[in-house]
Amino acid sequence: MITTDILIIGAGPTGLFTVFEAGLLKLKCHLIDALPQPGGQCTELYPKKPIYDIPAYPEILAGDLTDRLMEQCKQFEPGFTLGERADTIEKQEDGSFIVTTNKGTKHQAPVVAIAGGLGSFEPRKPLIHNITDFEDKGVEYMIKEPEVYRGKNVVIAGGGDSALDWSIFLSDVAKSVTLIHRRNEFRGHLDSVEKVQELKNNGKINLITPAEVVGILGDKKVKGVVVKQAQHIEKEFEIECDHFIPLFGLSPKLGPIANWGLEIEKNAIKVDNSLDYQTNIPGIFAIGDVNTYPGKLKLILCGFHEATLMCQSAYKIINPGKRYVLKYTTVAGVNGFDGTRKEAPKAVVKAIE
Amino acid sequence: MITTDILIIGAGPTGLFTVFEAGLLKLKCHLIDALPQPGGQCTELYPKKPIYDIPAYPEILAGDLTDRLMEQCKQFEPGFTLGERADTIEKQEDGSFIVTTNKGTKHQAPVVAIAGGLGSFEPRKPLIHNITDFEDKGVEYMIKEPEVYRGKNVVIAGGGDSALDWSIFLSDVAKSVTLIHRRNEFRGHLDSVEKVQELKNNGKINLITPAEVVGILGDKKVKGVVVKQAQHIEKEFEIECDHFIPLFGLSPKLGPIANWGLEIEKNAIKVDNSLDYQTNIPGIFAIGDVNTYPGKLKLILCGFHEATLMCQSAYKIINPGKRYVLKYTTVAGVNGFDGTRKEAPKAVVKAIE
Repeated sequence: MITTDILIIGAGPTGLFTVFEAGLLKLKCHLIDALPQPGGQCTELYPKKPIYDIPAYPEILAGDLTDRLMEQCKQFEPGFTLGERADTIEKQEDGSFIVTTNKGTKHQAPVVAIAGGLGSFEPRKPLIHNITDFEDKGVEYMIKEPEVYRGKNVVIAGGGDSALDWSIFLSDVAKSVTLIHRRNEFRGHLDSVEKVQELKNNGKINLITPAEVVGILGDKKVKGVVVKQAQHIEKEFEIECDHFIPLFGLSPKLGPIANWGLEIEKNAIKVDNSLDYQTNIPGIFAIGDVNTYPGKLKLILCGFHEATLMCQSAYKIINPGKRYVLKYTTVAGVNGFDGTRKEAPKAVVKAIE
Repeated sequence: MITTDILIIGAGPTGLFTVFEAGLLKLKCHLIDALPQPGGQCTELYPKKPIYDIPAYPEILAGDLTDRLMEQCKQFEPGFTLGERADTIEKQEDGSFIVTTNKGTKHQAPVVAIAGGLGSFEPRKPLIHNITDFEDKGVEYMIKEPEVYRGKNVVIAGGGDSALDWSIFLSDVAKSVTLIHRRNEFRGHLDSVEKVQELKNNGKINLITPAEVVGILGDKKVKGVVVKQAQHIEKEFEIECDHFIPLFGLSPKLGPIANWGLEIEKNAIKVDNSLDYQTNIPGIFAIGDVNTYPGKLKLILCGFHEATLMCQSAYKIINPGKRYVLKYTTVAGVNGFDGTRKEAPKAVVKAIE
């Protein structure tokens, strides 16, 4: 059982900034995310795209935003359960909650902050009749740990940035990389497309287009895939491989959270915006894109504000009767849980002679 | 008469970010501030101090924060009335407001956003009986335009960062700089104190301590000051000068805004936080440190959120009946009023052969 002060569902920008604001109040956080790395959409969907409306950043790449937020909160030592989806929640007699993931990992906390964005990202799966039999047995829809593929034969399917970027990355790690796409054209950053072209020319990536994977071979583990090629004459053939990785995009689904007894409106969780973004269940808050209230804007900067106000109420739940006086970081500095301290240089009082 | 869409009282971080958010909605802004430059407290009181709780900035100097916000909003060409205090407001028959400053400058807008921070900064004045006679006639409590002092004899009084920093700056501009302080000890950044020591050693700054200015000489303009020195034996003497600049700090006062008919609570303006931070007077909003509501935190990041939601309501007031659909800057880009356009690099669709 993982225990913490604030259990955060979702490790996107709002969830990460919650760690920082909670840390200022000496509250510890643990984050659960279905994606294999922190950053939410910013990291998974558009890490190289610029955002123009983060306050005081005329322009910042979404991936860099995640990096800065991770740097800002790391002194408060957040815990992470990544690549697992928060599935069930149970209220305990002491008022705390136990949240269990789809892999069975259990977390206990007095306060739960749902910062789930548009929901947990579920992969779009190819229509191959026996694909579910091979999930986690050689079929993966997301790459969590690239080292798994070292020295292996890998087949990647897809025509977007994920398929391109992972083909490039794994061409240096795997024994072989085969990239299969239904069209000859790929959609992605120009430099990614050009890099794949170069790796193909050098024989580092096998490219099969236009083609589709239509079957998976193997017994308990993937041993190969059946490829249907459709150029001039349609033909089917088999490729031996250890892993088949279809990267057809992720689509967000509110998912199991929808069954937690929370008031839902238009696929978002209703909260009390006149105070602290608490849901209809005391102790459970919803912040960032996942919530809704009159005038709600699904902007990252709004999630930052919501997280900050929410932490004040979390403090009161966790420290009943204790009064918190806001201290400015400029004046009071920041004391990390890791023993670090940041503070403004002190003014000196010094005679001039 | 200056006319605009949103008239913003206060050019601190919240006011500046309002310009950006309004610009995304194609609304034009004009800002009034009692201080001679944008940035509010951040620039005036602690430009060199780090802030640690701006989201995605593990550390940023308050002065740099102002610079970034100015850069972010400049494409939306804000107007500024600086060094003037918003004094009166009159509602017009057409629903718009006319705001007049203490210098008589008039501004008209359908929406007023008060982003006044802790209030307008009023200088602490030394107790010299005839000082008010010389205000703007050689006595200045803030330096608005350093070029005014080129080739002049300047006396600065004070013992903090402002007095130190302006003495350093003007030592290169003025004909002579005399710095007078009641004590031998100055309180400020170590490097500022050391720099003044060095300039004094090189004869670039005349230092008189411990001493006070007790009188001002002149007829219609400052011609000199009377200095009372108190080391061992008390003595008084006169110094010729063109300007006397007492820099004894600024203290914020809600000031004339308190008489605008707005609901005030604990020196702050009450707003409707359940929707759009509007005050009890429709069309007048209050955002940032100047407002209050249940759970209010006087944090810069909260001002950013409040400004953003406020702009949505401003849009509806200015464009009645028109519907606004939120567009993400990452997707839609940003079109500046100055003709610039920022946008994410487009994905290419390209065959790999």
